[in-house]
Amino acid sequence: MSLAQEMFAIAPATGKANLSATQLKLLAGKSRWIYRVGEAGFPTVPTVAITRTAWEALQAERVRKDNKLRVHWVACLVRLVGPSGKPPALVVRTSASVHNGGLMPAKTAIPAPTSEADSVDPTRPLARAIKNAFDSYGVSGGHWGRPRSDEERARQIVLVQAEADGEAERFLTRNAQTGVLGPAAVNGSALPKLPESIDALVKLLDAKAGRHMECLVAVKRGQVEFLSARPIRASAAGELEAAVDRVKSKVWTKQTAVSRVDPGRLALLLHPSLKSSEGSTPIATGLGVAPGAASGLVAFTPEDAARLRARGKHCILVVTETGPADIEGMKAATGILTARGGMTSHAGVIARITGKPCVAGVRTLTVDLVEMSCRIGDREFHAGDRLTIDGSDGCVYAGTLALAQPHIGGAMGKVLGWSDASRKVSVRTNVETVESAKTALSFGAEGIGLARSEHMFFSPERMLALRRMILSEDEDDRSRAIAGLVDFQTGDYSALFSTMAGLPVNVRLFDPPLHEFLPRGEEEIDDTAASLGLAVRALRLRLERLAEINPMLGHRGVRLAITYPEILQMQMQAVFAGARAASETQAEPVLVEVMVPFVSTATEVAFVRERVDAMLANSGLLHSDRVKFSFGTMIELPRACLRAGDIAQMVDFFSFGTNDLTQTTFGISRDDAPTFLAAYQRKGIYDNDPFVSVDEKGVGELIAIAIERGRAANPNLKIGICGENAGDPVSLRFFAGLGVDYVSCSPYRVPVARLTLAQTRG
Amino acid sequence: MSLAQEMFAIAPATGKANLSATQLKLLAGKSRWIYRVGEAGFPTVPTVAITRTAWEALQAERVRKDNKLRVHWVACLVRLVGPSGKPPALVVRTSASVHNGGLMPAKTAIPAPTSEADSVDPTRPLARAIKNAFDSYGVSGGHWGRPRSDEERARQIVLVQAEADGEAERFLTRNAQTGVLGPAAVNGSALPKLPESIDALVKLLDAKAGRHMECLVAVKRGQVEFLSARPIRASAAGELEAAVDRVKSKVWTKQTAVSRVDPGRLALLLHPSLKSSEGSTPIATGLGVAPGAASGLVAFTPEDAARLRARGKHCILVVTETGPADIEGMKAATGILTARGGMTSHAGVIARITGKPCVAGVRTLTVDLVEMSCRIGDREFHAGDRLTIDGSDGCVYAGTLALAQPHIGGAMGKVLGWSDASRKVSVRTNVETVESAKTALSFGAEGIGLARSEHMFFSPERMLALRRMILSEDEDDRSRAIAGLVDFQTGDYSALFSTMAGLPVNVRLFDPPLHEFLPRGEEEIDDTAASLGLAVRALRLRLERLAEINPMLGHRGVRLAITYPEILQMQMQAVFAGARAASETQAEPVLVEVMVPFVSTATEVAFVRERVDAMLANSGLLHSDRVKFSFGTMIELPRACLRAGDIAQMVDFFSFGTNDLTQTTFGISRDDAPTFLAAYQRKGIYDNDPFVSVDEKGVGELIAIAIERGRAANPNLKIGICGENAGDPVSLRFFAGLGVDYVSCSPYRVPVARLTLAQTRG
Repeated sequence: MSLAQEMFAIAPATGKANLSATQLKLLAGKSRWIYRVGEAGFPTVPTVAITRTAWEALQAERVRKDNKLRVHWVACLVRLVGPSGKPPALVVRTSASVHNGGLMPAKTAIPAPTSEADSVDPTRPLARAIKNAFDSYGVSGGHWGRPRSDEERARQIVLVQAEADGEAERFLTRNAQTGVLGPAAVNGSALPKLPESIDALVKLLDAKAGRHMECLVAVKRGQVEFLSARPIRASAAGELEAAVDRVKSKVWTKQTAVSRVDPGRLALLLHPSLKSSEGSTPIATGLGVAPGAASGLVAFTPEDAARLRARGKHCILVVTETGPADIEGMKAATGILTARGGMTSHAGVIARITGKPCVAGVRTLTVDLVEMSCRIGDREFHAGDRLTIDGSDGCVYAGTLALAQPHIGGAMGKVLGWSDASRKVSVRTNVETVESAKTALSFGAEGIGLARSEHMFFSPERMLALRRMILSEDEDDRSRAIAGLVDFQTGDYSALFSTMAGLPVNVRLFDPPLHEFLPRGEEEIDDTAASLGLAVRALRLRLERLAEINPMLGHRGVRLAITYPEILQMQMQAVFAGARAASETQAEPVLVEVMVPFVSTATEVAFVRERVDAMLANSGLLHSDRVKFSFGTMIELPRACLRAGDIAQMVDFFSFGTNDLTQTTFGISRDDAPTFLAAYQRKGIYDNDPFVSVDEKGVGELIAIAIERGRAANPNLKIGICGENAGDPVSLRFFAGLGVDYVSCSPYRVPVARLTLAQTRG
Repeated sequence: MSLAQEMFAIAPATGKANLSATQLKLLAGKSRWIYRVGEAGFPTVPTVAITRTAWEALQAERVRKDNKLRVHWVACLVRLVGPSGKPPALVVRTSASVHNGGLMPAKTAIPAPTSEADSVDPTRPLARAIKNAFDSYGVSGGHWGRPRSDEERARQIVLVQAEADGEAERFLTRNAQTGVLGPAAVNGSALPKLPESIDALVKLLDAKAGRHMECLVAVKRGQVEFLSARPIRASAAGELEAAVDRVKSKVWTKQTAVSRVDPGRLALLLHPSLKSSEGSTPIATGLGVAPGAASGLVAFTPEDAARLRARGKHCILVVTETGPADIEGMKAATGILTARGGMTSHAGVIARITGKPCVAGVRTLTVDLVEMSCRIGDREFHAGDRLTIDGSDGCVYAGTLALAQPHIGGAMGKVLGWSDASRKVSVRTNVETVESAKTALSFGAEGIGLARSEHMFFSPERMLALRRMILSEDEDDRSRAIAGLVDFQTGDYSALFSTMAGLPVNVRLFDPPLHEFLPRGEEEIDDTAASLGLAVRALRLRLERLAEINPMLGHRGVRLAITYPEILQMQMQAVFAGARAASETQAEPVLVEVMVPFVSTATEVAFVRERVDAMLANSGLLHSDRVKFSFGTMIELPRACLRAGDIAQMVDFFSFGTNDLTQTTFGISRDDAPTFLAAYQRKGIYDNDPFVSVDEKGVGELIAIAIERGRAANPNLKIGICGENAGDPVSLRFFAGLGVDYVSCSPYRVPVARLTLAQTRG
């Protein structure tokens, strides 16, 4: 392209712009909207553009005392002069593709150059303003953490406009909150009085940009002249409503609407959020491990939380860390705040399942259960004081802040409905209670991809039976405990299968280290010993032996099924009985999947499968067409990925557990990571938090290897993903690219997954 | 091969055997030695052989009332008849390639068949004995855990011998303990009186078999007739001496001697062992985590162990588990017994380094420090009672059992010396003290492949300085602590470099989770708080925050270097100063390697390398030809294996840490594994313990991937292995096949590695 081509009118005072294809490509940011509005025939202030390359060439020529390019530049400026023939005052604007704070604000009231030399002389007002505008790009470049490429720099442009006559007015093309089309007030200002002709501009810009735009116009005697516009970020709800409205008015197809909504922002609509945190300073920051905001009274024990709930009060459960004994308290609380733990901690997992906002790993929090008080940094709180937490960003505030409740109207439903037409990967959910299953179904879940069977033991009486089964040395006592547990769970499974009414339900066998289910603390140990008829001393000894140094890599998952076959037997009995019961009351067949967690060898899978097959044969369900049964395995250890070929021959499906796979691939315990992850993020060691977005280069390669080897060995192998990453848009695109059959995420991420996968070619 | 060929004389009464090539191939076990001795012209009792295939065909023919094959069989039996023409009484023997308990003992005094039909009729004595002999193979087949292949079964043979005249005598070709050639007593019997002509047989068999043989001969009037022989397992020392003796007498070349000694048995020579455990029943069994046997007085605290040591008494340190504070006590003890932990536990690692026998993870052991007593199963022991442990098999005995001290004479040195000629992979050692380094050098170590720098902080005063550095909030105090630590370590490094006199020394940067080095227990916490001028409550709070749920995957390795850069700085200062000091007193240049542990991304390596390079530039050692410096990384996480291409560009070498790599690849914490590993072994889930022999199919593939990607990205990359597997013969062969440059193992495994690698074509 010749340098003369890099200085051109995008909205000439008279006539058309007639841009070449190369010039059209240079249009970024405001210049694009000015050109489009002008081309559409709407009155637009005369505007010319110049690239950095052209400007630098003009300056070089000036030093050489040449004027070949200057002739073109002056000719270009002349196109700003209207029919009156009088050179207007000028305005210089940047036109960056991404708006940011370092850019020069528009420089107005620049006198027109008095000579041709004036037009390039940086000591004169026009050239000085242009130079400053280009310089401001350079400064802002570093702000993004990486230098701009030379090519990108060369293409940067600056605009010179004629100064418009009349009152300058700003407005939005759509309401930022509701998405309603028509001039709307810019945040914090009143809506200016605008003539009716503004509607044409609003429609025009909305259709061209497909985003909420902030516009600048000049109004004089009822006449509007367009000056500039830039896209703004509206509320998630506003964007969704706008998308539906554009489909309604035929600006967009349904497919376009689906492709243009940001899935990451959907999640914000599914939880309460802080109306505004302006004027409030967080007193501490932890990890936001379950999204949404919550306010309430401080409670330090599950019992207090339950008491407050019973009295209709909101409360925040504040604890050092949570364990199975705290489940009821967590359900009763409105939000959860812990001193320890991270994304995969007990608190985080349970909070996400139950949809409770949770901030975890607040290192400045200490809880004193004797005094019933806590310190957060320098401040002390007592039971009944008020706190607000924001589980989306990990902030903790003293007192009560105003919350916005989720309000999505019908727009989200419409967009998600349209999205299902172009989606190939199924979306399931990780739940194990009827209540959560119903929530997930309302969000469009197409099955359960992960029912964590151990969560069925969380009530006090079941916990006791489980402990009896594990700890009792009396054979009869043990059998009675097993029978009791089978009965409890049969009801649970039957209810869960019925709720899902013919959609697949995947039950993961008991996974966590046994000792997590055992009594802790003097009192609980004494009670358990008494109820089992064991000496306290003997019980303590056994508990000590079951304690582990690195429980995450300890006696858990398939290792339990192999060493405590009675747990496997009890679970399978309950699953079969539950399936039979559900099949007798519903029209659809019951689709049961059972999977074994934490395997590292095909031998482990074979061992469990052999026993499960034998129990299935005994159950009488083998040839039933009312119950369809399949058997699979979690793939969540590096070795399982490598040996996927062997393992695939023994199963119907793989379900990748990205949490454990990420932990073992990186050698990071997510619970312990907060002590160094902050420094890692500060020092830029990780591109992303791999527990949020899948680590494509490491964990991702292992998953790809496993899929390839697994499918090669078993072409019918079904592949799912059920870890934390399955709710993350970036990761979902990666998984779709690997050809997975389904993903499974927490209920509140189901809409996010539906939309993301509709946007992805799998 | 025709069936007639499968029944043949291997030592005919007259004439030569004249076996075909196919018949020679059938000779296994005793038949081989009978044939060879007979062929060599030594008087040998007439013997014929028949395969199972031929025998079964004879039986089938009998049922069909045919006799074509029987003609051959009778002709064969006729070759047992001597010049007298009188059919001898017969003996039937099995002739298995591997001796085992299920085989039929020789059946003697069988009358010769009275008719041709008699010779195949299973109701008659000869055919019945042959049938029983074949049947006993079948039974014993299952004993090895897998069915024999059909082909293997078909080739099994049974021998029919003429019954010899005279006294049957048994003896060994060499002394089982000393390896001296000449007839020697069979274990538990007296040496029979044998004529001098026996020497020719002994020499003949020793040369043919190259192993200690147990022989059976008939002696009559000073005449010896050879009946049968089978190899026996002599003591490791006896085998070694025999190997050297065979080279001396030119039966073997040096190379043959090197190839024939079993490296796994060498290790047994390097530690005391139980003379015999006969008559003693172990009172408990744990994991044998450091080989050798030890007897002594029970001590429960490091202080008691030190006290006993000072009084010249042997003691066994009996503890729940060990930590850094116990090091001095472990050094003072003769052996170590723990209730918790496994191969990679603190106790196991330190015991192997210091060469102390150690049994860990004895689940039936409980220690009561208040009563100063322990229970092992049902038995109670008090301080001063006597125990014996065997760290080779994990057995624990009450009382004192007799021990055999290592005695290798010069034979091991000779074989190892010969082995170095055919070895391509270097053998280094894992040590960090001058004492251990000297031991390793005496065993032939060619450098240090892993000096665990954190072990240099184990003395009380250094521990205090380290704690001061980590915990102090006073900047000056911290600087003083760092300076003190640098001084301490400079001396250590200088001494270590000097000891190794020009051989490479690889220093691994601080690896373990910080909290392992922090005070535990009331008293220690109070002392530390006082010495740091901190409030006890504040210190407790910080300690609680540093505690980890899964420390093995926590804040350790490179993560410490990134979050506590002062630790990195302190370590590098000491390494540089130590290298400078050593270089000033020795002729050879100092070869320093520094490596960073537990990396999962190239960014981590880049971060540390950048700082190390800057410190190196400041040290003034950069262009010295007296100190050569190289920088590398441990590869011990699955992700590091996958990203080896990126990482290799930033380092001079990789050192694979197979312990952590196995833990993360399998998702097993070795410390916690004992609770399920016993059941896994019983149920045959694992082929091998992957912490002993590298898991070739999983961990091995990751190592192979890393080597391939690493070398592709950096052709000069040096590759070493420094985990537990590097001392295991099977694993060493695998690593040699991957083309590694060196291995590094504990001092006591250095001879094992030297020999194994000499036997392996790399």
